Amino acid sequence: MRYERLDNGMTLVTDEMDNIDSAAVGVWVRAGARSETAAEHGMAHFLEHMAFKGTARRSATEISNAIEAVGGEINAATSHETTAYHARVLSEDVPLAVDILADILTAPALSPDDIERERNVILQEIGASEDVPEDRAFDAFPEVAFSGQPLGRRILGTRDSVCAVDEPGLRGFLGRHYSAEAMTVAAAGAVSHDALRDMVLGAFESAGHETPSEMPIATYVGGALDGDDDGSEVQWILGLEGEASAAPDFWPVTLAAMVLGGGMSSRLFQALREDRGLVYDTSAFHWAFRDTGLFAIHFATQPETVGEAAEVVVDTLADAARTITDTELDRAKAQLRAGMLMARESCVSRMSGAARNAQVHGRAVSKEERIAALAAVTPRDVERVMRQMMASAPTLVRVGSSFGGPDAAEIAERWAGHPMRGAA
Amino acid sequence: MRYERLDNGMTLVTDEMDNIDSAAVGVWVRAGARSETAAEHGMAHFLEHMAFKGTARRSATEISNAIEAVGGEINAATSHETTAYHARVLSEDVPLAVDILADILTAPALSPDDIERERNVILQEIGASEDVPEDRAFDAFPEVAFSGQPLGRRILGTRDSVCAVDEPGLRGFLGRHYSAEAMTVAAAGAVSHDALRDMVLGAFESAGHETPSEMPIATYVGGALDGDDDGSEVQWILGLEGEASAAPDFWPVTLAAMVLGGGMSSRLFQALREDRGLVYDTSAFHWAFRDTGLFAIHFATQPETVGEAAEVVVDTLADAARTITDTELDRAKAQLRAGMLMARESCVSRMSGAARNAQVHGRAVSKEERIAALAAVTPRDVERVMRQMMASAPTLVRVGSSFGGPDAAEIAERWAGHPMRGAA
Repeated sequence: MRYERLDNGMTLVTDEMDNIDSAAVGVWVRAGARSETAAEHGMAHFLEHMAFKGTARRSATEISNAIEAVGGEINAATSHETTAYHARVLSEDVPLAVDILADILTAPALSPDDIERERNVILQEIGASEDVPEDRAFDAFPEVAFSGQPLGRRILGTRDSVCAVDEPGLRGFLGRHYSAEAMTVAAAGAVSHDALRDMVLGAFESAGHETPSEMPIATYVGGALDGDDDGSEVQWILGLEGEASAAPDFWPVTLAAMVLGGGMSSRLFQALREDRGLVYDTSAFHWAFRDTGLFAIHFATQPETVGEAAEVVVDTLADAARTITDTELDRAKAQLRAGMLMARESCVSRMSGAARNAQVHGRAVSKEERIAALAAVTPRDVERVMRQMMASAPTLVRVGSSFGGPDAAEIAERWAGHPMRGAA
Repeated sequence: MRYERLDNGMTLVTDEMDNIDSAAVGVWVRAGARSETAAEHGMAHFLEHMAFKGTARRSATEISNAIEAVGGEINAATSHETTAYHARVLSEDVPLAVDILADILTAPALSPDDIERERNVILQEIGASEDVPEDRAFDAFPEVAFSGQPLGRRILGTRDSVCAVDEPGLRGFLGRHYSAEAMTVAAAGAVSHDALRDMVLGAFESAGHETPSEMPIATYVGGALDGDDDGSEVQWILGLEGEASAAPDFWPVTLAAMVLGGGMSSRLFQALREDRGLVYDTSAFHWAFRDTGLFAIHFATQPETVGEAAEVVVDTLADAARTITDTELDRAKAQLRAGMLMARESCVSRMSGAARNAQVHGRAVSKEERIAALAAVTPRDVERVMRQMMASAPTLVRVGSSFGGPDAAEIAERWAGHPMRGAA
């Protein structure tokens, strides 16, 4: 993997792979929903949509025709901290992909007619997410965990905020956030670092150079929200304060998520599904941000069994925080390690990994270094971070027709009164 | 790619890849929801779940611990015609994966206690799919298209049919359908065909040899269903009679789906989203089965705009059936061709592709042969199959609070009266 700060202020990171014929190339812009002011809510995602609606040189149809005529794909995604635009093409079409990416990022047309049409598209996207109970729960979850802060706001915006987006607003957001200094070009597969450098310097010549503003600091808060819903299942998400992307405890917390909810051998899958048949699926996540993190456990079950399942989660965490074994931690490490190695066979995964390393660590991070960091974690590390997280104020979001089981305050009390405290 | 009928009646198909360290290996059993009698509804999927609940040699926990201790993954999926069990592992763990797959497929414990627990899990899975309007629409869709036939029944079963599943039923289904002759082992990546042959012959020694019964013939029927729903969006799915997996017109119909709904340059994406902002997404599918096929177009939009969007779909198809251009067909071919080439970089895709070739064509089909078949299709072929499909009775499934636009009979009349008839 090669990492380079280019003369024009951009970062270029590449992961050349032999023996494959295709490539993935993308631009990661360090701007997302967290970069928005309250009045700009939904703007980062709206701008991502507008990038594909035409530029000074190409209509929307010409953009999609050009990339799809060579069998390529182009897409984009907006997260809280990043907006990523990426293409997958056969190797001979990398120059075309770079040219299109540069065009849509530096010279989007942002025509008022297109803004109106795209507003409707985004309102449909909001409607679609409102229709899925699990999406409703996961949208509300960060709003509770990071209450009143940009990191808590939903990325799509609200119907009202999307209706308020206009051309001057989009141009302002573009100018302030899409500067060369905020952009990382990441590529993997059948690519050459040196050739890409030339392409990027040429294609992004007109990129702006405003100093990117810092994202506002986020503070985990916690809290509770119950949403009425008449669905068959109750959605239940418990959150705790996690770790930042570059924090020393990033790996112990990530391993805690694996031990609790990663795969069929995990404690929660065994306890909730295999031993009791209470859920179809359960999972544990660790979302790491620049300055904070969010740890979460999710399941869905029928209204009659949500209380029992919630008790099982609370007890399983209390127990795990004192009893992580070498065997289960080795298994969790093997899962993450094999996942890393298998992901290396996909140029899309390697592009994303290179971009993440560039943005989080500001350098290339080798596979060996990541595996060594993983290997160094001990069962006591995982227990320690679990107890630390369980001392944070829980976030509890439930969406359904019945909310049996402990509420957020009871969960905190239960853990505070638990003998695990003595062991800490 | 190598294809071999083994002495024990099984089929082995492998796709060896250099320069990767992992492998995908799976068993495709020629039995699925279509193989069930009415009284067995949901049995194929239930048996797939039970495979992981323990065997004569291993408990459920031992199965998941064994594969996850080496960082592997094991999973399964039930479709109408096939139940597939597959593992992804590092190359040195292929023998373990084959041993576990053989164990769970030939000697599942099927204990009554586990059946009760797994029944609850499947009821949760049904509940989860009931809670998503898009899933409700797509579950109802084949029930209308293949009304009253096994191919139309939903794979999960109903609450009632799942409650009726018992141990003798599962053992009967296993004995009748999981014979060596019905099983294809497919593997890709860091594997050796010759080594796999030995592993498979050893591990599957106790597989049964009942002659697999033929699946009942399916006939496309068409029809209409409107489902009430108070969601933000209306789900709209239009179906037409497609082609069987090995039919001469398989590729023209698949290309029709690409031209209409594949990617951003497709006619429906351009008409519904880019030109009018009516939808967030739209897609066209071609599901091919052994003896028939189902072609489908889907979108979701707000109740106020469903009528307009439906008119756009009907007009777009009427227009496309007379006006497919060389340029757009070349683009559709390039998309499918590049998709095939990029999929070849993933051992999971190559395993699945090899299994599909073995089951559909009974032999290895080279990449060159598939690309040549694709290249031979002309714009007139695509227009011809479109007109043919549009002469079948439409299937129209709508789920929402308002059902504006033409109904199934009006769509058929509109197309029948259209000048495209004269051009046929």
